[in-house]
Formats: sequence, structure tokens, C-alpha cells
Amino acid sequence: MSSKRWNNAVAGREEQRHRKQQAVLAAGAKLFIEKGYDKTSLDDIASALNVTKRALYYYFDSKDEILFDCHRQGLRFVEDIIDRSLDRSVPVLERISSLVGEYTEWVNSDFGACLVLIPDSSMTRERSDYLRKAKARLDHRVRELITEGIADGTIRECSPALTTAAIFGALNWIPFWHRNTSDAKTLQVKQEFTTFIENGLKKHPEVASVGREDF
Amino acid sequence: MSSKRWNNAVAGREEQRHRKQQAVLAAGAKLFIEKGYDKTSLDDIASALNVTKRALYYYFDSKDEILFDCHRQGLRFVEDIIDRSLDRSVPVLERISSLVGEYTEWVNSDFGACLVLIPDSSMTRERSDYLRKAKARLDHRVRELITEGIADGTIRECSPALTTAAIFGALNWIPFWHRNTSDAKTLQVKQEFTTFIENGLKKHPEVASVGREDF
Repeated sequence: MSSKRWNNAVAGREEQRHRKQQAVLAAGAKLFIEKGYDKTSLDDIASALNVTKRALYYYFDSKDEILFDCHRQGLRFVEDIIDRSLDRSVPVLERISSLVGEYTEWVNSDFGACLVLIPDSSMTRERSDYLRKAKARLDHRVRELITEGIADGTIRECSPALTTAAIFGALNWIPFWHRNTSDAKTLQVKQEFTTFIENGLKKHPEVASVGREDF
Repeated sequence: MSSKRWNNAVAGREEQRHRKQQAVLAAGAKLFIEKGYDKTSLDDIASALNVTKRALYYYFDSKDEILFDCHRQGLRFVEDIIDRSLDRSVPVLERISSLVGEYTEWVNSDFGACLVLIPDSSMTRERSDYLRKAKARLDHRVRELITEGIADGTIRECSPALTTAAIFGALNWIPFWHRNTSDAKTLQVKQEFTTFIENGLKKHPEVASVGREDF
């Protein structure tokens, strides 16, 4: 029994606290998705980790704090993909495709699905504001990328705001129908969605006129 | 006060029952979206119609029955757009665009948004099965249209199932960010989404090779 406590997450002494916290977040995210936030109790999380509820309180004050930290964990990834999208040496359509592909994989992970599926309505105003702003940064980043592509002629004329909404709609809907399947299936979803979105954005040359100009 | 009862929905005598039922559904759908299903009571619906809760019971047994009939109302529209998509005299990409455009408008209506936003988890198994099958019919219809377009060379090679999932993701996400705005805005959403999806599906000719073949 004791060897299973914290799901064997305890390795190096100095990292113990961090690893235990991570184990709580991982178990929390998984349960919130499976059972729903309201129906998950701290007892459920403790039991998934083979520890007592009292042991959890050493790391988190409440279920609400666990959800907030799950979402924060998810948003750290979002900040990373924003950073990677800034490299102007890569063509803008390629940067959007990379971002879409990475987001697709992430939204299939427990922290990604948790951020999309579990509303933050139970949180304090301050916390939900923090999350809202972080999500808005990603949204605005994609709008900027689309604007950049329209300017350099690789993306067709469109509303960057509404097209970004269409893209995140397609991506955020994934956890509603695709969960717990194989890596091969996730890879196929990633490829199909990336191609669909890239094709939807791209400014495709007019065949007839290009033909005439060329000859 | 009495003139406001049933929100003036009572006109022709023979239609009274039907109109009153419709008024209940319209008020229900609106409140479910605004307040959430769990937080809406039969008293709220009665009060929105200026009638007593007892008057509601003459038409509906429970809140659950009202939600089911709202969803059924929404799905009648879905059956209509499936029917319209069957006319093979219209090019398939055009039929998909019409379906997408009509679905976009519908998902902005109260019954459409209600079907997308309010889960049917509180319903009996029989009722939720009925709804699931009706939604699946639309999903399969769009897959068939995409398959038809791939076969006739107007749509690029893709997975019809996953591409359909991307399309409905983009569309079903709309009520999460777009509510209660102007008709002009809804029209713009419709145009942008239709163009994005059509462009994403279309098999765009390769400029270089077509140029060579033409001359």
C-alpha cells in the first residue's frame, strides 16, 4: 500500500513537493473530465492517489484551487505556442499550421481538455479574469498571424477575428467527441484539421488569370 | 395584466393550444440559454409568460419535457436542411455551403443555441437516444456530401468523418461566443464561416500544371 502512495510520483527528495503537487493536478484534471467538476470530490482525488484527503490539504486549500492550477498548467503551454509563433523567419501560414497542430495535440491531453471542458464559473472573479486574459492572448495572437498573412498575400482576404473564432471552434470542440483513443487516431485528427484549416486560410491563385498572365 | 398573459400569443381559437405550447418552448429555450438549465425553474418560465405554474402543467408535465420539445423543435430544422441537401441538380460544394449557412443562422436562434448549449444528460435514456440519432443523421449527411464531392473531383482528398467534425466544431462553438448581437453581425459570421469552410474543402487546381496543360 505505502509504495503506491502518490502513485509512485515521489523520487528525488528536493522535488518531492513539486511532484506531489503535479500528481494532484494530473489526478484532478483526469477526474474533472471523466466525472465532471461538480461530481468530483477531494476524496475522489485523494483516493485516486492512494492518500488521505488530509494529505491533499497540505498542498491545496480547495478543489477550486486544484482546478485553477490545472487551468494555469494548461495555459503555460498556450504561452509556449504563442512564443514559438513569433519567429518571422518561418512563413506565416506554416507558423499557423504548427500552432494548430500543437494545439490539437494539447487539447487531447488531460490539461488541455480540462481547460476546454470545465467552466471556470465556480472560481473567484480574480482567477477567472486571469484565465480569460490568457485565453484572449492566444486568440489575439492568431488574429495577428492571419493579418500578417493577408498583408504578405499568402492568406486570402477575411475577417481575422471571425476566422480565428472558426479555427478555435473546430479545435475546442475536439474533446467533446474525441477522448481516450489511440495516438494514431490523434495524429490523424491533427493532420486532417491542420490541412483543413490551412486550406481554408490560404489564398489560392486564380487558375485562369494566372494562366493568361504566364503566357 | 390579462392582456399580457401568454405574451399575447393567443390569436385564432383553433390554434390556441399549439400557440401556447410554442410560447412555452420559446420562453423555455431563452431562459435555459440565459440562466442555464439547472437554474431555470418552471416558475421562471411561467413568470416570463405572465401565467401561473399551474397553467404550464396543462401543456407540459415537467421542465424536462419542455427541454426535450425545445430540442425536438430544433431538430425539425435539421431534418429540413438534410432534405434540401439532396437535390443533385445543384453542385455539391454549393449544397454544403447552403447547409453551412443555414446551420449558422439556426445556431444563432434560441432553439439552435439551446440544442448546442444545453446538455440532454437529465433526460430519459429513450429521449436522449432519439436526439442522438437525429444529430447523427445530420453528421452522416455531411459526410456523404463530402464523399460525393471527393468522387466528382470538386473536394480535395480528406477524411469525410474528421472534416465533418471540424465543420460542426466551428459551427457549434458559435453560441459560446456570439449571442444577442445584430442581424448584420450574424450575416457577417455566416459569410465568413461559409467561405472559410468552402475554401477548406475545395480542391484547388495546381496553378503550374494547369497552366502548362492549357497552352
